[in-house]
Amino acid sequence: MDKLRVGIAGCGFFAQFHIDAWRRLEGVELVAAADPDLARAGAAAPKAYATMGAMLDAEKLDIVDIATRPETHLALVKEALGRGVPAICQKPMAPTWAESREMAAVAERSGVPFMVHENWRWHPWYREAHRLIQSGAIGRPITYCFRARKRDGLGETPYTDQPYFRQMPRLLIYETLIHPIDTARLLFGDVSHVYADTRRLNERIVGEDLAYLLLSHESGLLGSIDGNRYTEGGYYEPKPGSPPLGEATFEGEEALLTLTTDGHLLRNGVSIWRNTVHTGYRGDCVLATQRHFVDHLRNGTPLETGASEYLKSVAIVEAAYESARRGARVALAEMFHA
Amino acid sequence: MDKLRVGIAGCGFFAQFHIDAWRRLEGVELVAAADPDLARAGAAAPKAYATMGAMLDAEKLDIVDIATRPETHLALVKEALGRGVPAICQKPMAPTWAESREMAAVAERSGVPFMVHENWRWHPWYREAHRLIQSGAIGRPITYCFRARKRDGLGETPYTDQPYFRQMPRLLIYETLIHPIDTARLLFGDVSHVYADTRRLNERIVGEDLAYLLLSHESGLLGSIDGNRYTEGGYYEPKPGSPPLGEATFEGEEALLTLTTDGHLLRNGVSIWRNTVHTGYRGDCVLATQRHFVDHLRNGTPLETGASEYLKSVAIVEAAYESARRGARVALAEMFHA
Repeated sequence: MDKLRVGIAGCGFFAQFHIDAWRRLEGVELVAAADPDLARAGAAAPKAYATMGAMLDAEKLDIVDIATRPETHLALVKEALGRGVPAICQKPMAPTWAESREMAAVAERSGVPFMVHENWRWHPWYREAHRLIQSGAIGRPITYCFRARKRDGLGETPYTDQPYFRQMPRLLIYETLIHPIDTARLLFGDVSHVYADTRRLNERIVGEDLAYLLLSHESGLLGSIDGNRYTEGGYYEPKPGSPPLGEATFEGEEALLTLTTDGHLLRNGVSIWRNTVHTGYRGDCVLATQRHFVDHLRNGTPLETGASEYLKSVAIVEAAYESARRGARVALAEMFHA
Repeated sequence: MDKLRVGIAGCGFFAQFHIDAWRRLEGVELVAAADPDLARAGAAAPKAYATMGAMLDAEKLDIVDIATRPETHLALVKEALGRGVPAICQKPMAPTWAESREMAAVAERSGVPFMVHENWRWHPWYREAHRLIQSGAIGRPITYCFRARKRDGLGETPYTDQPYFRQMPRLLIYETLIHPIDTARLLFGDVSHVYADTRRLNERIVGEDLAYLLLSHESGLLGSIDGNRYTEGGYYEPKPGSPPLGEATFEGEEALLTLTTDGHLLRNGVSIWRNTVHTGYRGDCVLATQRHFVDHLRNGTPLETGASEYLKSVAIVEAAYESARRGARVALAEMFHA
């Protein structure tokens, strides 16, 4: 079978993980890259272009992987799908709810394969947790907690890997907690209400760097997402580099499933699964996300994070900010009727 | 120095821990007990009475320890303080906010020593956590989480030790989470706002058996209390009998302090303090609570849970239920202006 020809748009910090994974993924070939910094694009792929438009003009691609900043996503998705090129767009979908909804509408209308690159649900520990919970390993789910932690927000120069984080008006929920939000939907289904409260711990940034979210699922389940970029799970020194960026507990009527800061799973305190994947990004979740899209193109496997489906996770982000503004719980239905 | 003469009112399930502790506490003598079940009262102390009133008629007491059900507390506190007898009243203060406020007003007006028996803040692990946090062991506090757990709410006959729990219209926050609420005030100061959401997992009971609380402290600190009576921290089998009834984390800018389900403290994952007290109730906290009152009577040590002070913890309970009703954050100031 011919290899699928992939082009990437954007060759910044996180795009490097995409590039590495495309190079290793079976059945695809990274043939082109677009970036205003042509040297960076040239280092990524054999053909380098300044813009995605120029890349699509010159190359016949089977997949375009949009890994630019969120501000550019809607225009690039429109352009790619308008040309009939299957596209993956990195999360966050877009800076505003209106743009995210427009992207979903455009994608649905286009009929061209499209997926949001949401890699947390492709962490091997969450795939295994999902399998275990579905198989009844904890019994009836009672509650859960994701502790999302990364200790890179302190001091005078926070977020050195992505310094533009400092200027983002919405930071932690929009950029980081979208991941556990989406994973909570994978594990426990859709959400009906959300409550959120936020703090800015580091006064040198514009957005929030600590947040608590309470998610009420349609099943009635109540769970929590507790995130900040000041502390770490378990220990602070030496730098642990926690693969799951924190820890999580999934409590059922019959047993407790714990995701440790090392990326292993315990059932009632006893090891039940150990992560053995140390290549790529955090359990090689970027590669698994890309493979999911390739499986869809090749075999028709249903996409887990197609535009309309992923919009349900984005709606929780938007409802969380609205909740923090109001100091009150917000119904997700309200987000779609507004 | 003469021993202080103590009488206890109520000899039910939890009163047994009070009785045991009074017998072991230095400088006091448990001389009398009151209970409608005279055999139970007689087993508790040399002199047995059917009611507290009869006990106070017949005995000259230095302390009366009110360990009856909350419905009776206000009348008994009024009676004891009206007779000028220093009194300790078991938590919860009373079933309603109006009665709790009346009790505080009565106690303040009486000028007679009075304290609520709130024993969680006297757990040795929380005293040590308090000392460590005050001494700067975690740096600037960033957030905290109490996970209050007890696995006695399941099945067809939940709460076998205290079957009347099944009929209580307000269960988990009112009866159980008042403890971590009060301990959060000890560790992190007064609270300005609370948000709460609750669930009833066991349909055989009247009240709630799962709740999440988010507490905004006056310092700006945001922390959480996550409680249920369906699951355990760490592991489910064999029955762990977690001394702290769950676990807790106190995260600071410089370090993480963890209270384990075994009642030990870790700093950044390394043991920093181990509980060695295995006599009495959960770190002998009942005895420590009683000793605090005796210290006040003998030495004038300020009471930590005098009526007006403890009312601030009760106000958080009331605000939490109001919050769950409204689906919105409630300001504590509102509770005192209503």
